[in-house]
Amino acid sequence: MLRLLLLLPLLGAAGALPAPLRRHRRASLPVGPYLTRYLSQQIDHFGFDENRTFQQRYLLADQHWKKDNGPILFYTGNEGDIEWFCNNTGFMWDVAEELNAMLVFAEHRYYGESLPFGNESFSDSKHLNYLTSEQALADFAVLVEYLKTTIAGAQHSPVIAIGGSYGGMLAAWFRMKYPHVVVGALAASAPIWQFADLVPCGTFFSIVTNDFKKSGKGCSESIRNSWNAINHLSSTGLQWLSNTFHLCSPLKTLQDAAVLKNWLSETWVNLAMVNYPYKADFLQPLPAWPIQEVCKFLKDPSLSDKLLLQNVFQAVNLYYNYTGEASCLDVSQTATKSLGEMGWYYQACTEIVMPLCTDGVHDMFEPQKWDFDALSEECYRMWGVRPRLSWILSMYGGKNISSHSNIIFSNGGLDPWSAGGVTQNISNSLVAVVIPDGAHHLDLRSHNPLDPKSVQQARAMEICLMKEWIEKARHGH
Amino acid sequence: MLRLLLLLPLLGAAGALPAPLRRHRRASLPVGPYLTRYLSQQIDHFGFDENRTFQQRYLLADQHWKKDNGPILFYTGNEGDIEWFCNNTGFMWDVAEELNAMLVFAEHRYYGESLPFGNESFSDSKHLNYLTSEQALADFAVLVEYLKTTIAGAQHSPVIAIGGSYGGMLAAWFRMKYPHVVVGALAASAPIWQFADLVPCGTFFSIVTNDFKKSGKGCSESIRNSWNAINHLSSTGLQWLSNTFHLCSPLKTLQDAAVLKNWLSETWVNLAMVNYPYKADFLQPLPAWPIQEVCKFLKDPSLSDKLLLQNVFQAVNLYYNYTGEASCLDVSQTATKSLGEMGWYYQACTEIVMPLCTDGVHDMFEPQKWDFDALSEECYRMWGVRPRLSWILSMYGGKNISSHSNIIFSNGGLDPWSAGGVTQNISNSLVAVVIPDGAHHLDLRSHNPLDPKSVQQARAMEICLMKEWIEKARHGH
Repeated sequence: MLRLLLLLPLLGAAGALPAPLRRHRRASLPVGPYLTRYLSQQIDHFGFDENRTFQQRYLLADQHWKKDNGPILFYTGNEGDIEWFCNNTGFMWDVAEELNAMLVFAEHRYYGESLPFGNESFSDSKHLNYLTSEQALADFAVLVEYLKTTIAGAQHSPVIAIGGSYGGMLAAWFRMKYPHVVVGALAASAPIWQFADLVPCGTFFSIVTNDFKKSGKGCSESIRNSWNAINHLSSTGLQWLSNTFHLCSPLKTLQDAAVLKNWLSETWVNLAMVNYPYKADFLQPLPAWPIQEVCKFLKDPSLSDKLLLQNVFQAVNLYYNYTGEASCLDVSQTATKSLGEMGWYYQACTEIVMPLCTDGVHDMFEPQKWDFDALSEECYRMWGVRPRLSWILSMYGGKNISSHSNIIFSNGGLDPWSAGGVTQNISNSLVAVVIPDGAHHLDLRSHNPLDPKSVQQARAMEICLMKEWIEKARHGH
Repeated sequence: MLRLLLLLPLLGAAGALPAPLRRHRRASLPVGPYLTRYLSQQIDHFGFDENRTFQQRYLLADQHWKKDNGPILFYTGNEGDIEWFCNNTGFMWDVAEELNAMLVFAEHRYYGESLPFGNESFSDSKHLNYLTSEQALADFAVLVEYLKTTIAGAQHSPVIAIGGSYGGMLAAWFRMKYPHVVVGALAASAPIWQFADLVPCGTFFSIVTNDFKKSGKGCSESIRNSWNAINHLSSTGLQWLSNTFHLCSPLKTLQDAAVLKNWLSETWVNLAMVNYPYKADFLQPLPAWPIQEVCKFLKDPSLSDKLLLQNVFQAVNLYYNYTGEASCLDVSQTATKSLGEMGWYYQACTEIVMPLCTDGVHDMFEPQKWDFDALSEECYRMWGVRPRLSWILSMYGGKNISSHSNIIFSNGGLDPWSAGGVTQNISNSLVAVVIPDGAHHLDLRSHNPLDPKSVQQARAMEICLMKEWIEKARHGH
């Protein structure tokens, strides 16, 4: 169970959609009408024995597109339903008119409706075998070329890849591997260096901790102290814990107490990712600066175990029940068997192995070493596959990417994933944009009156560079 | 059988080794001692269900290497035994000392000793599934990284990819896809544009024809007339044809006459590729400028059928029997089931689909349209796979490669494969080197007193650019 601590944040963190999310989607998102389309894609681009195809879904909005080779903004879909990404990437909708751009949102294989083997897609390692970033990028390349050859006036349209989180990694990698397909990429909150030993494994959780430390006196200390409080109650106080946290299913074993702690850890991580400056509902409906709100309950770390944990409940209840609709809280929520999570779990067990660790000193979490061997065993048990730690570096270059061009790496200073991001310029055309007041890909969200200056500036810079790429492409550079 | 005409030249042309070749290898090649090594490679880099490994062979020569991060010249092995490429790439041996370079020759999976499933490797489409250029490039990337981390003093060694023919395509693609692994590439006689409709399908054979036209009066016309002469004799004169051509196995059917014509066609193509200015034994032991020698037998195209064909025999006999050791000629020679040919045949049926055609007007061959559907049927019949015509363009960019850097494309004016090569500069760092008097990757061969000025200049240019890449890498650019 302990091993899962290192995996679960990955699931929520890089954007997999917990089931409740879909229920809370607002109807009034700043999104225009779009068409839903499907393209036949090879299930296996890299081998010829499997010659079947599947239907990849993509969304297309061309109301602002200038037909005479106006640009295409291409969202490189990540680990979830593409409609959700479409609805949560307001930035693309906001700039479509200014750039005279067509918007395309491409769904990642094995997510949403784009299931290579339908209901069988997750049944075993044979069916999951084609779920890799390389296959997804090949889908994107084939789709772009299909659009350019079939849409009148798009033949010479410059295409810009845009993505956030894992989708941001894909956007950057897409430009690196297929520069003939996309003239540039905006990789928002893309932790392309959260691999192997490229960055310290503990920075992620120390950023989470800092977010809480800055948001209220006693806040991070309260959380740090909460683990032992739970431990003290985990033998005789399970019933009390279940009642106090309003859990839908009562805790029954010592292992269940670990589940509770994992669930709390992930809640704090998620809060750090969605610590937006305005009321929003990215992972949950939340008030502006939600960590500040949460920290209002966590001012006194020196309280007794029970009083402290009652406050912790108030804090997480704000996250899970801001609307007041939840009658109880579900600790298995982030481990639902939704397709998005299934696929991401598999990817985290194969290519996308992101070392994370805590020490309880530089962060407010229970100490947990990074344990690759344990992960490997867990993955083998679950999927019959073993992760390959160094493959992603061989494939995408690790830190040695200076020969590429036209990629913007944007990162939020509040976002734990910035730990693995590119936060300094690599060259004139590999540009880092840091948004000190930004959480997880804030820049990709719709503009908002409460946006801090730093994200306004970041977006202006991004638009400026995208225009430059488009202009250069138009003149055949 | 007609369909094979379009495939067979591919087999010989891009360098697969007919069996006799190995018999003629000289012991006294200008090659120093080297070590033979093996590295465990994933059979499938792009999927996790197949987790077995195989032993990739590579050859290593470090006698001239400067241990303090001296450069590595890395031969991207193509469709044959790596020892043969090592022995036939004298250029690398010639420049090793000047560049203080380590030489590495990496064998391509499914060729030579690097068989993923041993004797079973070619048994069916399941076992052949991992024979693709992408898998081969991944092997190369993993091998380079392995060498740099395990050889003391090589950690920061700049690596330059070098290859000829299909190996040249791999060298160019290696730099395009893994610029973090190699600082540049010398792609000699690499027809990276002999795909889809990037170049006219007929240029290849018109270059062959020009080589013969320029090498003797009446020569190409004699060959053009020979096809009808064979046709006239193909019903009642099979015995005469068999005797005249000293065939090991007599022709028996009309189809056998087609085999004879295919074999002759391929002979002329091979001669065009190895039309070197000095005695050499690349595909066969041959005199200097072999086409000129061959054309001495083919001066009078207006002879009667039988006299014309007796001359054609003299011509091909020079190619197949220059040493006088052959007691008969074998029309199935280039279709042997040697591993190299098996693998290449499969690749030509999947990714490496190179449209070729003849019209009998701009070339001296029997007219033959490019017929993708027929190829597809043939491939399905033989291997149970179907070629994908546009995949290679999606993957490697077709003509749209200007965003890459540090690649030299060298091509010989006499080489039919220059039809699909890059023969004009694309940018300051994507440089075309044309060698008007050169046949197939003449520049990669050892220097020779009879080398024309053009190849000497080409090599000087190549060395100069390689030094520039090495210098820049050393200064961290």
